Amino acid sequence: MGSIKDKTAIMGVGCTAFGEHWEKDHEDLIVEAAYEAMDDAGVTPDDIEATWVGNLYDFTGLSGAVAAEPLKLFGKPTTRVENFCASGMDAFRNACFAVASGAYDVVMACGVEKLMDVGGTGLPVDMGHPVLRGSSAPGMFALTATRSFHEYGWTREDLAHVAVKNHINGAKHPKAHFRREITLEKAMNAPMIAWPLGRFDCCAMSDGAAAVIITRPDIAKTSKHKHDYALTKANAMVNEAMLPMYRRSFDFLGFEATRVAARTAYEEAGIKNPLEEIDLAEVHDCFSITEILNIQDLGFCKQGEGAKFIRDGHANVDGKLAVNPSGGLKCFGHPIGATGCRMITEVTKQIQGRAEGAQVQNARLGVAQNLGGTGSVCSLTILGLPE
Amino acid sequence: MGSIKDKTAIMGVGCTAFGEHWEKDHEDLIVEAAYEAMDDAGVTPDDIEATWVGNLYDFTGLSGAVAAEPLKLFGKPTTRVENFCASGMDAFRNACFAVASGAYDVVMACGVEKLMDVGGTGLPVDMGHPVLRGSSAPGMFALTATRSFHEYGWTREDLAHVAVKNHINGAKHPKAHFRREITLEKAMNAPMIAWPLGRFDCCAMSDGAAAVIITRPDIAKTSKHKHDYALTKANAMVNEAMLPMYRRSFDFLGFEATRVAARTAYEEAGIKNPLEEIDLAEVHDCFSITEILNIQDLGFCKQGEGAKFIRDGHANVDGKLAVNPSGGLKCFGHPIGATGCRMITEVTKQIQGRAEGAQVQNARLGVAQNLGGTGSVCSLTILGLPE
Repeated sequence: MGSIKDKTAIMGVGCTAFGEHWEKDHEDLIVEAAYEAMDDAGVTPDDIEATWVGNLYDFTGLSGAVAAEPLKLFGKPTTRVENFCASGMDAFRNACFAVASGAYDVVMACGVEKLMDVGGTGLPVDMGHPVLRGSSAPGMFALTATRSFHEYGWTREDLAHVAVKNHINGAKHPKAHFRREITLEKAMNAPMIAWPLGRFDCCAMSDGAAAVIITRPDIAKTSKHKHDYALTKANAMVNEAMLPMYRRSFDFLGFEATRVAARTAYEEAGIKNPLEEIDLAEVHDCFSITEILNIQDLGFCKQGEGAKFIRDGHANVDGKLAVNPSGGLKCFGHPIGATGCRMITEVTKQIQGRAEGAQVQNARLGVAQNLGGTGSVCSLTILGLPE
Repeated sequence: MGSIKDKTAIMGVGCTAFGEHWEKDHEDLIVEAAYEAMDDAGVTPDDIEATWVGNLYDFTGLSGAVAAEPLKLFGKPTTRVENFCASGMDAFRNACFAVASGAYDVVMACGVEKLMDVGGTGLPVDMGHPVLRGSSAPGMFALTATRSFHEYGWTREDLAHVAVKNHINGAKHPKAHFRREITLEKAMNAPMIAWPLGRFDCCAMSDGAAAVIITRPDIAKTSKHKHDYALTKANAMVNEAMLPMYRRSFDFLGFEATRVAARTAYEEAGIKNPLEEIDLAEVHDCFSITEILNIQDLGFCKQGEGAKFIRDGHANVDGKLAVNPSGGLKCFGHPIGATGCRMITEVTKQIQGRAEGAQVQNARLGVAQNLGGTGSVCSLTILGLPE
């Protein structure tokens, strides 16, 4: 096993506002995100040699055509990648491999989802696997909350602190779905979705798209962002059993996929002490409890200390290690296939000191963690600045 | 734009029998193909560092779990790639990029489809794109046949020769869906599906899986197949407009995606005269007319001469350039996500001189061409032996 450390660089990033885009289809969204990314990179569609697109619900389009058709990327390859909610970052990962292999100089990774056109919970509960029948994403993640309450003495207030923090952050971001702060009381008194997860413990349904232009560092050095292109310091993806919650070995206190991906990525990036070395993290807070467990799985604090880490403000934008300065899935939104590339976009802009929302001061190294299939898969990317 | 020429090698290949596997689900099939490939490569699941799986109808499983779950490939990454009927070869392509990038030493590309569980034409005619409504794959490809008849004077007998040839080949292959020869009369008198395409002009519905183990040449040199591993001489993929047949510019006489992919791949592999240099080709004969048009688009003969090329026996196993010695999609079968990897498997075994069916004598260089979305995408791979 080798590494693609420092072999790929991000030339430009783009992202639509996330939200209920009843007036736009997935083609509108992907065009908006892709052109913003190309403008940021200083390239045109002609410069894009190959494309990867993350998209879960393929009825919105089909195959590589999801991106190739609206962007008129004809005469060159476009691959659709699908890996549950981690589809976007897996698209980014494969795009990085292609550039690092020497096959292409400039490529695009993007992701898109039109959840307003799907309805439902965002989880294909009636598709295929028998254990999915009757399950829902809130219902499954709720089990990790009740187990954590039992094990660590956490309460619904601990969960509410996550939502409050992410709404403080998202309120400052012009592209976030819910641009307003909320109080602890509002979060705690919200309607129950799946006990103990209330309305503000669950990310909502959003439409959106995001795009990233990837190249080799030697090309990035001659580009618009020649001084501040983002370098891929590590990328690790781990699949575990499908719906690991249904396995007897699942401890309901975190996700093995994230733990292994983090260990692998830190080793690749040469990170010894995550809390000291990493400046910010966009983590997969599909539910408030998921953010707390992710913080632990990512090694930002010890097992059982995730809730305190957030309560003490360490995950705030001005804390030790800012978590979801964008507002995260909870406040920014979670159009499934888009989320991975949206995280890459956010981390890139943060380390470049040009965050659109709350800027983490002196950010140099950031993590993007994209979970899928209730822990079936985790894709994790670490981005840093050139020396 | 660069190249991955000679950067990746095939260590081992595996393929299930294609057919109506009512007694097996997609998990059974993928396990069978993957273990055959691993045995052939002399590796175990522990050696597989990452996996790509081509699969169109994701209801059979979900995401990377399509392969990760049945093969218990936990703790490492599995990506689902979906690109219409070219999903399998796009999975292979991305696996090659990852190895060529240096990220992994040994990976698997595989593909699977359980069409017996889908029913219908194998085309998602009611999904998404408005122009798809009411269309069918036979209906769309039939338009290329009528146009070719008009332009070149071809007849239904020209089409029938394709079916007869592919059934002669497939009859010899123990894994082919339809292991019997047919007569020209039988082909021509078969029930009509979409004029002028009769029953034997159309590939059928098959279940199946195929798998390929990929590594770097320096590792292949120390493996079981150290003397005869297959080298990736070129890989090119081209997306065109979604359903190009609905574009005004479509000439109904071939597929631009194949033409561009072939041009690109020949340049990468250093092929000047395809007919003289290539020994065999597995081409995408979803319909008899498609094989004839592919032969032209691949430059094996001039435009308009495809039917004569086959009629004169040049595409026979003992002809100038054997086309579909396996029996092709028509006779071997076409479980959509599996087909691309099945083609790679066939070409690999042919150039290694151990074809399971009809062996092309002295085969050294082979092409696998995987078309998707009625010409929306073409993925093309050229495999050769080490010097």
